[in-house]
Amino acid sequence: MQNNRLSQQIQFILEIDKLKHILRQTLLTDSSRRENTAEHSWHIAIMAMILGEYAPTGTDICRAIKMLLIHDLVEIDAGDTFCYDAQGNVSKSEREIKAANRIFGLLPNDLESEIKQLWEEFEQQNTPTAKFATALDRMQPFLHNGETQGGTWKIHGITSNQVMKRMAPIAEGTPELWEYIQESINNFITKGYLQP
Amino acid sequence: MQNNRLSQQIQFILEIDKLKHILRQTLLTDSSRRENTAEHSWHIAIMAMILGEYAPTGTDICRAIKMLLIHDLVEIDAGDTFCYDAQGNVSKSEREIKAANRIFGLLPNDLESEIKQLWEEFEQQNTPTAKFATALDRMQPFLHNGETQGGTWKIHGITSNQVMKRMAPIAEGTPELWEYIQESINNFITKGYLQP
Repeated sequence: MQNNRLSQQIQFILEIDKLKHILRQTLLTDSSRRENTAEHSWHIAIMAMILGEYAPTGTDICRAIKMLLIHDLVEIDAGDTFCYDAQGNVSKSEREIKAANRIFGLLPNDLESEIKQLWEEFEQQNTPTAKFATALDRMQPFLHNGETQGGTWKIHGITSNQVMKRMAPIAEGTPELWEYIQESINNFITKGYLQP
Repeated sequence: MQNNRLSQQIQFILEIDKLKHILRQTLLTDSSRRENTAEHSWHIAIMAMILGEYAPTGTDICRAIKMLLIHDLVEIDAGDTFCYDAQGNVSKSEREIKAANRIFGLLPNDLESEIKQLWEEFEQQNTPTAKFATALDRMQPFLHNGETQGGTWKIHGITSNQVMKRMAPIAEGTPELWEYIQESINNFITKGYLQP
């Protein structure tokens, strides 16, 4: 019979398939449907490979990629909370901690601890790596909203001030990307994608 | 205005969103729908994090993750070729090289070269890292077919011999995983998921 450690690893691998069912608010760039969280995680992991030169000093790109791949696994139990949903965000942290315990707990102890550390580093936002990862996590739906003529901003009547606030982590760690975001916001207001 | 280099990087990031539309034969583990290639790439990149201890000596896990994230981008132009489709596989290589030139060519030269090298290393299968990446790329749909009572094997009448042949790269580089695959194949034949 297969060894128990490998069985636990396989069980985790099968469990995380469920992330492909978690729908985000973001639309795909052709507006055909909403994006799911597995696709989103893949997209931002590649962004870390492509935009690494803009990362804050001290960023470990490989660690950022791993962090981005696993950072939303808790949504399997906790669901995706829309970033502009004030009420949903009150209970978010509690729901996600419970989810992390269950989902990462499927793994053998050493791997559970490794993945949990990555997730906690992302949540705590104290390292350059976590700040870079967050900047990309915020930037990707921003790019999609630009491509879809305002996408979820239009659907939910989001203002440029709300977007500016949401994008603030990009300003802190990645100034070149922040400059791009600011120019784009002005551009999107002019085009009517975003309320001034 | 934004600098030209960053514009090229953003253009590539927006272009690869199209991979979320490329459907594979594999079903999600609840059989609800076919998986797309972006989701698949995310899944196997996490598998590299979780199963790294079984990788061949000399494997660079971080490089394997990057390789797995980008290895199927060519499908944006070339489509997904079903692994048991003999005719489709004749023209596959030519279609994919053309796709690689167009898609990776959207990037600034240094990044184009970096991503192309990763893709070529995967295709050429000469390094432990590429062998490990391929083992995971083969193993993930195998696991899904087991979870979906035979899934695409049943739909296309695939035999255990065909699956054994397809899984051969796992035997070469990752003996512990190969043992698991062999046991599972016997189990799946008994259950009627796979033709003997």
